[in-house]
Amino acid sequence: MAVNLSPPDPRQLIGIKGVELGVAKAGIQSGDRTDLVLIRLSWQSRVVTVYTQNAFCAAPVIVAKAHQRMTAPRYLLINSGNANAGTGQAGLDATNRCCEAVAAMFKDKPEAVLPFSTGVIGQPLPVDKIIQSLSHAKQTLAPHRWYDAAHAIMTTDTVAKAVSRQTMIDGRTITVTGMAKGSGMIRPDMATMLAYIATDADVAHDTLATMLNQAVACSFNRITVDGDTSTNDACVLIATGEAGNAPITATDTPAAQQLYSLVLEVCQYLAQAIVRDGEGATKLITVTVTEGLDQTECRQVAYTVAHSPLVKTAFFASDPNWGRILAAVGRSGLDNFDLSQVSIFLDKTAIIVQGEPAPNYTEYQGQQVMNQDEITITVQLGRGDASETVWTCDLSYDYVKINAEYRT
Amino acid sequence: MAVNLSPPDPRQLIGIKGVELGVAKAGIQSGDRTDLVLIRLSWQSRVVTVYTQNAFCAAPVIVAKAHQRMTAPRYLLINSGNANAGTGQAGLDATNRCCEAVAAMFKDKPEAVLPFSTGVIGQPLPVDKIIQSLSHAKQTLAPHRWYDAAHAIMTTDTVAKAVSRQTMIDGRTITVTGMAKGSGMIRPDMATMLAYIATDADVAHDTLATMLNQAVACSFNRITVDGDTSTNDACVLIATGEAGNAPITATDTPAAQQLYSLVLEVCQYLAQAIVRDGEGATKLITVTVTEGLDQTECRQVAYTVAHSPLVKTAFFASDPNWGRILAAVGRSGLDNFDLSQVSIFLDKTAIIVQGEPAPNYTEYQGQQVMNQDEITITVQLGRGDASETVWTCDLSYDYVKINAEYRT
Repeated sequence: MAVNLSPPDPRQLIGIKGVELGVAKAGIQSGDRTDLVLIRLSWQSRVVTVYTQNAFCAAPVIVAKAHQRMTAPRYLLINSGNANAGTGQAGLDATNRCCEAVAAMFKDKPEAVLPFSTGVIGQPLPVDKIIQSLSHAKQTLAPHRWYDAAHAIMTTDTVAKAVSRQTMIDGRTITVTGMAKGSGMIRPDMATMLAYIATDADVAHDTLATMLNQAVACSFNRITVDGDTSTNDACVLIATGEAGNAPITATDTPAAQQLYSLVLEVCQYLAQAIVRDGEGATKLITVTVTEGLDQTECRQVAYTVAHSPLVKTAFFASDPNWGRILAAVGRSGLDNFDLSQVSIFLDKTAIIVQGEPAPNYTEYQGQQVMNQDEITITVQLGRGDASETVWTCDLSYDYVKINAEYRT
Repeated sequence: MAVNLSPPDPRQLIGIKGVELGVAKAGIQSGDRTDLVLIRLSWQSRVVTVYTQNAFCAAPVIVAKAHQRMTAPRYLLINSGNANAGTGQAGLDATNRCCEAVAAMFKDKPEAVLPFSTGVIGQPLPVDKIIQSLSHAKQTLAPHRWYDAAHAIMTTDTVAKAVSRQTMIDGRTITVTGMAKGSGMIRPDMATMLAYIATDADVAHDTLATMLNQAVACSFNRITVDGDTSTNDACVLIATGEAGNAPITATDTPAAQQLYSLVLEVCQYLAQAIVRDGEGATKLITVTVTEGLDQTECRQVAYTVAHSPLVKTAFFASDPNWGRILAAVGRSGLDNFDLSQVSIFLDKTAIIVQGEPAPNYTEYQGQQVMNQDEITITVQLGRGDASETVWTCDLSYDYVKINAEYRT
């Protein structure tokens, strides 16, 4: 069902020197599939993260944040099939036991382990299954396992999501490789559920953190499937510094801009992949709001349109029922909203021009656009110079089916 | 599909002296059904209204507001099947022509007519069909036609919604009778789509307006089906003064309190009826948030839960997947939100107690509650004394089906 999203080609996923990935079948998810990922980082790696804004954040998020305050991460442990959220103190204990087991295996300290979980909320984490599978995950550690790892972190995803991009900086080849999972319970902030991106570039910690925050703001935090923010979202950016470039220590240098472009490209690819694989999605919808007073109000309008079940079902039906877009824009709550300045487009087809129905619009034109599987809604507010873009998908029978049957 | 909602019994709908209703088949909606309502009010009637907050409000809303500023309403003209929204200047012209035709028929002025439309957005209003049907609607004018009128205003509603309530004030029998339509594109403010409530009590205009605003805040503005605010919502409260009670001129008298209770009861009945008949609804969900700092934050939490597609699909599946409720509460965005004070209940079954999973909760208990067709979610915030309640329904296949096929 995913919209124009192919599985990654394993030959085009480029390993990052300093990042080894291992996978195992811990039996957390049903069926004969991998559900555990172990990542080991070279000792000089810098790691920056963004976590869910949900106040009810899951046990692994609480533990990971605490560990990051104590020391530099060297191991990431990710399980799918169980979110270890809503599990109270028992959930924290479970996560800590997993981290201790990883630390013992590598003769390191538990604080060097960042734990991540994704899956059903409110079920006890099967700690013993995880611990028993760690040695297998360790045996498989290798830099080329991004493809395997991208599969092991999937839950309701139908397609694995991973990508590599390269550029030359200082005469050195720099690679950025990332993977993500996510399909439902998707909205900012964060919207990814889980994403792991690594580069071999040499970047200072603070510069790397700035890059991640900016890239997330223009990618994972601009997508929505159903408006529900997960309890477990996390996005991790790793720089191993193995490429041998001159260290990047500020964001305003040409080298930093080059690297940021690459990181942003990978984040946007993965973020759009999540929407393309949104639960039940049959269409990728880009909502662009322009001519706003500021970016906040542009987002407000864009998300009102992107979250509207009536807009989303109309797109599922390929029905050019543009009145629903107009109604959503109208209820978005802007102050002093002068509709006579508003124009709305389906791709390049004008449906509203300065508050009036577009004189030349025909249902045939609207139908032509709606028959596509990738459509851009553009809303011109006529109030200023700001703009924002968010990505979403339609609302189909299968969204209901997937979420009604998730635990059965 | 409506949840425990029976059609009104025509014998139990009590006419209001001074309010005559007539219906006609104008051919706006397909099929052999009524789709036009004409209401004539006695000359001394007081009329107060609340309209949609959607900035893109429909042509009839713009005209009705203007007419009310000019004179006291004597006629209401309501059509279903076409919202006359998103229709620009042509839509205003169309509405004005309808009002002029009603005025000509009664030899009155157009400003005495309040127009209302509900149905598809963005289609030209078939003015000629409406005008041709006015004389038939006029011929049928009678006080007992609430039942017929409640049917004529339906669009995707599956059950007509109307109710009467009576009390004694000053030794006089006072009646309140109301009807409403609405099933999708339902959320505050307004959430009704259309509601018309009349009483024969003698009430001053300002007192009546205060009563309507309060009653709407506790009924139509506390329901949500899909979070989409209509462009056409309106709620009208009429007092004909025919009952012969001592005029009610302030809200703090016992007579005023009695009348308000009756008006509120009718509004809440109709508001809940809209949710019970929500598009595709199989369950009525009451979300009560208590112990908040103020009512605003209680509503914020309640609507976050009530709008969550994941919560709604879990209820459709009768799946006690309470993690989704917890995740929705967690993302509701309260400042300084201390989860260790939060408790959550499904009916009387505790699922979260002071931030921890309820120790005695069993999946069996949760399943018993979820198997019901009316369920209350209670969220105790542990922050203060304020509370709020909203009503919503689940999200089913049929919601998608109804909205994907609405115009086909």
